[in-house]
Order: sequence, then C-alpha cells, then structure tokens
Amino acid sequence: MGDLERLPVGIIGASGYGGVQLVRLLMDHPSVEVVYLGGDSSAGKPFSDLYPHLGHRVNLTIEPIDLDIIASRCQVVFLSLPNGLAYLMAPVLLSKGCKVIDLSADYRFWNQETYKTWYGGERNDGETAASAVYGLPELYRDRIGESQLIGCPGCYVTASLLGIAPLMKQGLIIPETAIIDAKSGTSGAGRTAKTNLLLAEADNSISPYSVTRHRHTPEIEQICSDLAGREVTVQFTPHLMPMVRGLLATIYATLRDPGLVREDLTTIYSAFYRSSPFVRVLPSGTYPQTKWACGTNLCYISIEVDPRTGRVIVMSAIDNLIKGQAGQAIQCLNVMMGWQETLGLPVVSFYP
Amino acid sequence: MGDLERLPVGIIGASGYGGVQLVRLLMDHPSVEVVYLGGDSSAGKPFSDLYPHLGHRVNLTIEPIDLDIIASRCQVVFLSLPNGLAYLMAPVLLSKGCKVIDLSADYRFWNQETYKTWYGGERNDGETAASAVYGLPELYRDRIGESQLIGCPGCYVTASLLGIAPLMKQGLIIPETAIIDAKSGTSGAGRTAKTNLLLAEADNSISPYSVTRHRHTPEIEQICSDLAGREVTVQFTPHLMPMVRGLLATIYATLRDPGLVREDLTTIYSAFYRSSPFVRVLPSGTYPQTKWACGTNLCYISIEVDPRTGRVIVMSAIDNLIKGQAGQAIQCLNVMMGWQETLGLPVVSFYP
Amino acid sequence: MGDLERLPVGIIGASGYGGVQLVRLLMDHPSVEVVYLGGDSSAGKPFSDLYPHLGHRVNLTIEPIDLDIIASRCQVVFLSLPNGLAYLMAPVLLSKGCKVIDLSADYRFWNQETYKTWYGGERNDGETAASAVYGLPELYRDRIGESQLIGCPGCYVTASLLGIAPLMKQGLIIPETAIIDAKSGTSGAGRTAKTNLLLAEADNSISPYSVTRHRHTPEIEQICSDLAGREVTVQFTPHLMPMVRGLLATIYATLRDPGLVREDLTTIYSAFYRSSPFVRVLPSGTYPQTKWACGTNLCYISIEVDPRTGRVIVMSAIDNLIKGQAGQAIQCLNVMMGWQETLGLPVVSFYP
Amino acid sequence: MGDLERLPVGIIGASGYGGVQLVRLLMDHPSVEVVYLGGDSSAGKPFSDLYPHLGHRVNLTIEPIDLDIIASRCQVVFLSLPNGLAYLMAPVLLSKGCKVIDLSADYRFWNQETYKTWYGGERNDGETAASAVYGLPELYRDRIGESQLIGCPGCYVTASLLGIAPLMKQGLIIPETAIIDAKSGTSGAGRTAKTNLLLAEADNSISPYSVTRHRHTPEIEQICSDLAGREVTVQFTPHLMPMVRGLLATIYATLRDPGLVREDLTTIYSAFYRSSPFVRVLPSGTYPQTKWACGTNLCYISIEVDPRTGRVIVMSAIDNLIKGQAGQAIQCLNVMMGWQETLGLPVVSFYP
Repeated sequence: MGDLERLPVGIIGASGYGGVQLVRLLMDHPSVEVVYLGGDSSAGKPFSDLYPHLGHRVNLTIEPIDLDIIASRCQVVFLSLPNGLAYLMAPVLLSKGCKVIDLSADYRFWNQETYKTWYGGERNDGETAASAVYGLPELYRDRIGESQLIGCPGCYVTASLLGIAPLMKQGLIIPETAIIDAKSGTSGAGRTAKTNLLLAEADNSISPYSVTRHRHTPEIEQICSDLAGREVTVQFTPHLMPMVRGLLATIYATLRDPGLVREDLTTIYSAFYRSSPFVRVLPSGTYPQTKWACGTNLCYISIEVDPRTGRVIVMSAIDNLIKGQAGQAIQCLNVMMGWQETLGLPVVSFYP
Repeated sequence: MGDLERLPVGIIGASGYGGVQLVRLLMDHPSVEVVYLGGDSSAGKPFSDLYPHLGHRVNLTIEPIDLDIIASRCQVVFLSLPNGLAYLMAPVLLSKGCKVIDLSADYRFWNQETYKTWYGGERNDGETAASAVYGLPELYRDRIGESQLIGCPGCYVTASLLGIAPLMKQGLIIPETAIIDAKSGTSGAGRTAKTNLLLAEADNSISPYSVTRHRHTPEIEQICSDLAGREVTVQFTPHLMPMVRGLLATIYATLRDPGLVREDLTTIYSAFYRSSPFVRVLPSGTYPQTKWACGTNLCYISIEVDPRTGRVIVMSAIDNLIKGQAGQAIQCLNVMMGWQETLGLPVVSFYP
Repeated sequence: MGDLERLPVGIIGASGYGGVQLVRLLMDHPSVEVVYLGGDSSAGKPFSDLYPHLGHRVNLTIEPIDLDIIASRCQVVFLSLPNGLAYLMAPVLLSKGCKVIDLSADYRFWNQETYKTWYGGERNDGETAASAVYGLPELYRDRIGESQLIGCPGCYVTASLLGIAPLMKQGLIIPETAIIDAKSGTSGAGRTAKTNLLLAEADNSISPYSVTRHRHTPEIEQICSDLAGREVTVQFTPHLMPMVRGLLATIYATLRDPGLVREDLTTIYSAFYRSSPFVRVLPSGTYPQTKWACGTNLCYISIEVDPRTGRVIVMSAIDNLIKGQAGQAIQCLNVMMGWQETLGLPVVSFYP
Repeated sequence: MGDLERLPVGIIGASGYGGVQLVRLLMDHPSVEVVYLGGDSSAGKPFSDLYPHLGHRVNLTIEPIDLDIIASRCQVVFLSLPNGLAYLMAPVLLSKGCKVIDLSADYRFWNQETYKTWYGGERNDGETAASAVYGLPELYRDRIGESQLIGCPGCYVTASLLGIAPLMKQGLIIPETAIIDAKSGTSGAGRTAKTNLLLAEADNSISPYSVTRHRHTPEIEQICSDLAGREVTVQFTPHLMPMVRGLLATIYATLRDPGLVREDLTTIYSAFYRSSPFVRVLPSGTYPQTKWACGTNLCYISIEVDPRTGRVIVMSAIDNLIKGQAGQAIQCLNVMMGWQETLGLPVVSFYP
C-alpha cells in the first residue's frame, strides 16, 4: 500500500464473485494497487468479513459509493455491479478523468436498442456508450488500447467467441448453422442466494435454462456479425453444471469446404491466435477439460471435424470467473495501459 | 385418492425438504392417503409448481393453514415447520382429535426450560408438551405406540443416539468421555436460500460450525441422561459436508472395561437392535458409507475398539432427510397406528 | 426365495453397476426371483462382499458361469457383461429354452457389419442375432413382446432416441440437421478403475470425449433411419459430467415447418408417448433436471422452438443406470412376459 | 530453462499428484529450475502427455531413473515415490552430493523399528536415516536448515500437528485425551486407479477408513511425544471426503487448566506461530473452510473451548497436496537453501 509507482485502482461492487476475483488477482499484479473497494449494502464492513480467508492479506474496508472521492483516488475503476448500474456511474467517472472497465452488460452493445430489448431500462448515455470498446482483447486489442471505457464480455460469450471467431472471420462456416451448447459452473450466477443454486439442488444434476432466450445470445450475435461482415443468428443454449467454476462451449457448424480436416483447422486456429498468449490451441485429438483452465486466464480450444456430416466441432474451455470475467478485465487493463498483456495473470492451474 | 381404507393425513409445511420427503414417502405407503398439504407463502400453488418432477404423481394444491379444516379432513397431521410454530398448532389439532407428529424441535424436550434456553419463545402449552413422546422408535417404541403427539428427533441426534445408545444404556463407557464428531450433507439446512449453502460456496470444502453450541447438543444429552440414568454431558461438533444427503456421526468414548474387543461390542449392538428393523449393525471391520443409507430409512452402524487407547469408536450413518427426518416420522406413524414398523419405508439404496 | 409363483431369473455379470442395479430393482419386483448371480473374477464371493450395504437383503453368492446350470435354474437370463461376450452365451442359453436380455452392444445391431466395424470380433451367430429385438419398448413394444432375445439400448441412445423419435417418425425435421449434445454422469463408464474416472480427476470439471466417433452413434443412426424410413446421419457428442448418475441429451434440429410452436410439439410428443408410462413430457417452459429422473425408470422430455432460427431443441433426461440400462432391461422383461409394463419399476425420485 | 542463476533440481516420481504439484509450484519459483523429471512406467513420455494442460509451459520428457545422471545434473532431488523406494535411492544421491527431499514415509521415523512395523521392508540405511530431519518447518526449522535429507510429513500429520503442537509443547492438555478426527479429499490417495476412489463411488458420500490403524498415527505420536517430552498416544481417525482437495483435522483434548478461554488459546497460538508465515490463526469464532487453503501452502487454524466439558477443540485446514505434500517440500527447500521461507509458494486461494 502506498507504493508510488503502482497504478491506483478502485473496485465498485467488491462483495460479489467478480469483486473478490479482482481483489485476488490484483494482489498479484506488480503494477497495480487497489486503493478503494466500494459497495452498497456491505459499506462499512472490512472486506475480510465477507471473505475471511483473505484476512491476512487484504486490509481494506468497503466504502460507500461516492464518485467524487473514487475519482480523486483512482485512475482506473472496475465496475462489478448488477446490470443497469454502470451506465449511471461511468459517464461521471469518465468526465473526472478515470478510465472505466465495466464487467456488466451495460457497455457491451453497439446498438442501445439491443440493450434495451434484453435488459430494459431508460438510458441517456448514448455518447458515452458509443465510445465504449468491447473488452475481448483477442479480437479488439487495438481499440482497447486506445479506449477509456471497456464493456467486458459475458462469460458464455467469451468462451463462445474465442471458439468460433476464426471460423466466422475467415468465412469457413455457414454462419447460420452455428449452434453453441454451453455448460457453466454455478458461480457464473454470482454470490446471490437463490434456491436453484443451492448445493442441495444443483449438485449431481444438470439442467438447461433460458433456452432460445438467454441474454448472452445477442452479444454473441453482435460480435459474430462483426466478424462475418453480415448479420448472423446463432443458436445458444446454456446449462447449469454441478460444479463451482469452469465453462465449456461445444460449438457445431457446417463447413463451407467439406475437404478441410481437423489438422487444417488446428493450424488456422494456431495462426489466428498466434499473438494471443491466453488462448491455447490443443493438439489434434486432445479435448479440453474445464478444470485445466480453472484458476487461470486461459482459454483451451480443440477442433474436430466430422467428415461424415461436414461439420466442425469446436470445444472451448475457460474459467468463467477469470477469463470469463475478472481476469479478462485485468487483461483489458494491461492493454489499455500499454503493459504486457499477461501481467499479473495466472496461466497454470492447480491440477487436480 | 379417495380410497376409503386409507388413513387420511395432512402435512403442514409441505414446501420444504421435510415436506417433499413426506409426500414422496407417503406415496408409496399402502395405508395412508395424503389429503391435505398446507403452507403459508406457497398457499394456492399446485405442489408440482414447487417440485415439477412430481407433476405426474401429485395432484394436490397447497392450501392455507386452517386448523379447523385440517382437523376435519385429517386423522394424523405432520408438522414440518420452522421451530416455534408447532406449539401454536399442536394443542388445537390434538383437541380436535388429530394425532400430531412434529418434525421441529418444539416437542423434543422434557424440560421446557431447556427448550427456551436454546430456542427462545414464550410457551404456555405445558400440558400438551408433557404428553409428547420423543419420536425415536428404537428407544421409545412402546411410548410412541400410546401417544397422540410425537416430537421427532433432529437428524444429528438420530445418528448420534443410535450410535451411542447401547453404550450409554448398558454402562459400557464413561459417559463424560463421549465425543461426537458429525458430518452432514447440506440438505440438512433445508431449502432456504443462504449464501453459505450455495453450491459455489459449499462444494469441494468442509467446515465445522456451531462448535460447542449446536442446538442438537441438549437433545443428545437429554436422551443420553435418560439412558445412563444420570446427567450426561457430551461433546458435539457438526460439520457441513460437500454433498446433498447423508450424515455420519463418528463417536468416541472410553470403555469402562478395557478388555472388550470389537466383536463383543458388535454382538452387544446386534442384540440391542434385534427388534429394530432399520438399524443394520455391520460386520466387524466394515465401516459405513453414508451413501449406503441414502434413499432409505436405515441406520448403518459399525463399532471399532482401540486397545491402545481403551476407546470405542462407533460410526453411525443415516440419510438425514429420511431416517433423520421424514422417514422417522412415518416410522413413528406406523408404530402409533399399530402397523408393521417398516410399512411403506425404503430399506435399500440405489447404489452408486 | 423359493417362492413358487415367481419367475426364476439369473444375472451373468453381477458385479458391475448394471448387475447391482438389476439386483436392486428386482428385489422390489413382485413377480421375479433372482436365483442365480454369475461372475468370473468374483465367483465364490458373497454378493455382499462387493456391495456391503445389501448384506441385510441379498444372501446370494456369485457363482461361476456354467450355462447348463444357469439354464436349468433360470427362465430368463440377464447378460450384463462387457461387449463381445454375450454373443458367445446367448445362442446356448436360447437353445436351452431361456429368454435372454442382453445389456451389452452385442445384439443391438441389425447389420452385423456395423457391429464389427465399431466393436470388432468375429461372430458366427448370425441367425441368433437376426432374431434379436431392439429393447426400447417405447418404439418396439410389440416386437419385444414376441421375442426371446433382447438387445437393450445404450444409455446415450435411450435418452437421444426418446427425445428425437417423434420428430424422426413424423417427418417434422430435416434429419441430417440433427445434433445431439449429450452429458452423462461417470457411472455410465461402469465400475472399472480408470484414472480419468477418479473423483480427483473428474470432479468439478466437464470434458467432451470420443467426439465424432462414439460407438453409440451408429446405434442412434440405425433407429433414426428406421423411424425416418431412410438413411439418417446424426451428429453426436458425449461429455463426461462431474456427477454420479444422470444423463441429459440436448437435441437440435431444423424444423420442416417453421410455423410450428412449442405448444404444437408438446402436444405431438404427448400423443406420441400416450401409452408410454415412463416418458413424461413436461409442460412448455419447464426444462428437465437430470436429478428428477435419478432412481427412476423415467425419461423427462421438454421441447422448445426457436422461431429466430427455425430449430427445435429437445431436452431429454434419464437415469443412465436405470432407464439407460437395468431398468429398461426389466421393462423389456415385463413386456416379454406380458406383465404390466411398469411392474416393479420406480417412478419417483428422492429429491433433492 | 538454462538460467545459470537458478538451482537445478530434479523430481523422481513425476507422474503422480505429488510430482505434478511440484512441477506446477516450481514453475513459479524464482530461484529454481526443474532440469530432470524421472519415472519408471512413464519414462520416455513427454510430461505433457500425462498432464496436457501444462503443454504450453512444460517442455520436459520423463526420463528413466539413473541416479548417476540425476546427481550430475541436479543439486537437489525431490523423491515423490510410493513408500519403500526412497531408502534405496537417497543414500546414493546423498553420497554424490545431492540434497534429498523425500515425500514418502521412508525418512519420517526416528526409530526404524516403527517404520518396519507399519510399512514393512528390510532396510540397511540406518546411518542415512539417522541423518534425516523431519520436514515440518514450523517445528523443526533450524534442523531443516542444516540438513541434507528431509523426510516430509504426511498430509494428515501436517494438519494434525500444526493444530495440536502448541497444546502439546506447552503442556496445556492431558496428552492421552487427544482425539483427531480428520477428513481428506480423495486426491490424498494419489493418482492410482482404485475402485473406491472413483467419482461414482466416492462422490456424495463420506466414510471412515483404517480406523485405529492408519499409518499416520505413529508419525503423529512420534512428534507429539517429542513435543510433550514423554510418550504420547493419540486417537486418529481418517475419513474419505467427496471432494478433490482439502484436509480438515478436528482435534479434541481435555485442558489441564479449565479456566482457559478461547481468546487465551488464540493468543497462545498466535505467539507460537509468530514466525511461521504459512500458519494463519483465525479470529475467535471464525472456523476454517478447507477451500480457503486450497491452492495455497497455508494452514488455517481456529481454536474453541467448551467450558461445559473442559475441552479444547482445534480446527486445522490445509490443502493436502500443497501444505500437506509438495508445497511443504518446497518450503523445506527454501529453509535448506537459506532462502526466504515463502519463496515461490502461493498464499491466497482462488475463492470460490
């Protein structure tokens, strides 16, 4: 604390899983110091009341949310709040000179109508929203580097897009055949006490939810459309998994060229992600386990081709709370600050 | 439904795990018909809204709690409510001629002061409470058979008492050396949405709680004192386990006679439980897995002796929601009605 | 034991999960008596050595496999063995007058070349194989009723076929668009000690396996082709789930008629399965959890339609060891014997 | 690789969980370079064949075990082998100038008769064994610093001793009243494919094992006797938990001075571990969850006193594979080399 050479950052919404991941990861970041943790219902509590295991390392108290104070102390502010709050705070923080990295859905959409359709709310921050950059560095690294406001992707979207981007970008598939069957650990739903997330309910079971209507669908489609150069519709189905962390997207699509084999595609993927240190394209025939990614900012990808059906099957695995959330936000910070992209981010899991 | 030969019973508090277990088990009971399900916040909802997997079998709607109506329709009423509510209802139901089987703590204590110390509340149902019988058939079968009001034991208490009763009753141990280290699946905490019971929190972890002060302690001590014929104090520590169901009590005590071997004690236990069809004393050297008991009303017990330390170690495993709760209540019903004790109760788990 | 009115049956391969499920389920079957348990490496052991929790109920010893003796004692024989053994035993047992219900892959294929391609081996039981009936009663009830030899479906196949059959049979989808993304608990791999099935490896993780080349694929295609009336190729991807039991198939296909809504399809499914007591078509908007099916012979099915993409999404959940294996075998037995199809089979899970 | 300033170390037995943890942790160690991985059955395989998730970071191939070669390349050798092999290798490696850190039981015992009683085997390395130091730095830091050969404690022993040491050392309890009820994740049993460790068997269940006769008992007693200054016998019971990692020891003992309260003991513990950076004594009333320790080299300890029974209850939680195994070995290395004790070792878990 008090290290003059470190960048002072704040986290608004520190009590949830996004917040504690940010705190945890930023502890190991050599160029950052967390100088502010903000919360609403938890204001006034030592952070270690919420997470006692961090008591020996984190000496911060959660403070009320006062944007003036935050802006005076922080150069970068992470917003880790429920959807619909960031757009009330980001314009103020930006106007006071802060960079803002938002983990909610508020700044993910280029078309505010899409946001309103799926998330509701009345917004009048159009100009601010227009300046936001979509925080997936593997696809928008350059723009992130020049931005003051980042809208970080959803967890399902991250695994899905990293899995499908090379296919969409290079026109290798018929876009409308894309089907994403995704499976996520329950931590993706946050630290909210809901009956269906109880261990007694969710353990030893799997179930689909929000079939045909999950809010990550328009986000996947927005970026796929950008990559494909035309409007793309995809099928997306999330499943709740009996596990804490980890997210797998199994992606199906019909190849335009039925002569492609998996080795071709593995080569194409490796080239596509050549400069992306967090994407690990696996050797042909090795499929990812989500556990491999847990505790890291990695995305493990494997590609299979079925010559019988003419389809490609892409498997993409991440830790939903790191590459799918807090780690990605820090990766964006690194890019924004012109630092090495991997700074302070873990790349090896503890296995088993 | 409408079977004239079946005993009409009702369940007040049908929405929780106790309620759904009762409903589930009573479906398979040949002499009972559930004619009433009552609840407060869930009144008006079809039961299958709460538990859709039962939609094809349960056609009942949760009704408001009206004791007159309940008494007019039910001969036996199960109360599956939070502590502190049963003692407001039981006297009325009894006065109207119902038998009452309470799954809460309200009628477990012979001394109302003990209840008030641990559970609080003002009660003026002293006469009713005095007529209640403790619902552990293995120890109080005869009294249960003659009673109109049963206070069913807690889940930890059931496993602990079945494990320690022969030792206490036959004076085989020094009572004050008894230590019970117990481990329970999270369903024991009910279907209440609490943060610490979320899969994301509770999975892949174990933690002790309420150390030295869990409310099942005085209940264990009450019955141990009754068995030993003098005041007994025991050490009891519960642990929250990363599993849905199942409860293990590992019990330690110093033997009075250091010459006893485990085969002696296995023989003593087998004799003690000769007429108790739900207690399975395992062969020497076979230790129980909680999973063996899951989905059944069984209690698996194994006894070990350590000649180096002069201690007996008893391991006692149950399904916390069946023998530890709803199954035991039905076992009490069977005894109250003079039916075969095992009627309608499962005795073989699905393994694995 | 010794009940003259019960059908004497035997199980060859009693030590694995298929075997123990059969034993467990047949205990509750009112018209059957298990008179023989056979095994190879476990011959001579009491069954309760392998499954101590059954010690109080099962008094049988595993015997060596002697087909003469088996045939002299059993009217029906369940074969629960690794692939490639049943075809050596079934012809003999049939010739001695036994009915045979095989749980392996040996008698699932109408074309022995398909079997050889996927499972290898040299077979000369062509005539016997030709007499086998595919043991999915929901589709082949009549033929099962007239057969002496049943080849029971694989677990993935059961969930997949029950989910897709109405669409294939009634020409509602473009068959080649069918994609089945399936998720199974680890018990599906049997009681074999393999590193990847260890709790330490498989817990808190999900991974795909055998992508594009799982041996249940040709089996699904065989029956889909039969239903569709022409050769059908499907995409099938299995995933290993961090759970003991339960299997979900999420099925995607393009509708021929884009005007169909989910209520239409729910109605069609309900009609299709009108006479199938184990298939539960859920109300629109209710999606199955695999846990609902656990411990039962049920298949829960839900149908969703995505008007944006023109696809139907079918979700089909079973207990892989019951409806996916042993329960289905007993259902076939019931049909073969002309008994009520549901005899002795559980239809309500213990939840949670 | 090839960094001249780093200490070259080797690992014999790299394929198991101890090995992969060592590799994983040493990757992050700033002063060490792993230059050799040795194995028997896995010799010749790239390490990433065994652990594909490390493919992007570990470029080593498992080599045959040739002690001459190993000694020529490594200054320190970690032995991560089944019991009974290290004592064949350590004398040779030591004679060639290597320091040796053994993770097996071979060098844990001061009396070789004790080893032989519990582990069997004929040994003639008495002199070497006599030079070994018990590798629990919190108790034997100074001796470790001067040693060439370390016998690292077992996982159960580490949690148990850190929990009980202050009581034993300072004479606060009656030693023979000590009871340790311990619970471990299944990874403690290693990467060996055994039926009882399958997810299908071990998940959603808890069971005791090796009651009164687990091989960690004499090890606990050896050190407790050393601390107490006289022969001490303890009761130790391990339980297999349905989780991957994590180990909790719940320790009971009768206080000599019944006037001590938990705050007294918390103060005593804090003082005892003042110089032990990996032991975190929790505030009064906060009990550890094993998950807090996972992925770290920490031991979380909480102390409770029961004035009703005169007992102290100590709860001690570690990651069985890190503080209970590989992390502790590296901690010993740090002490041996005169480095900062915490070098390269993780101290914050990823939660949840």
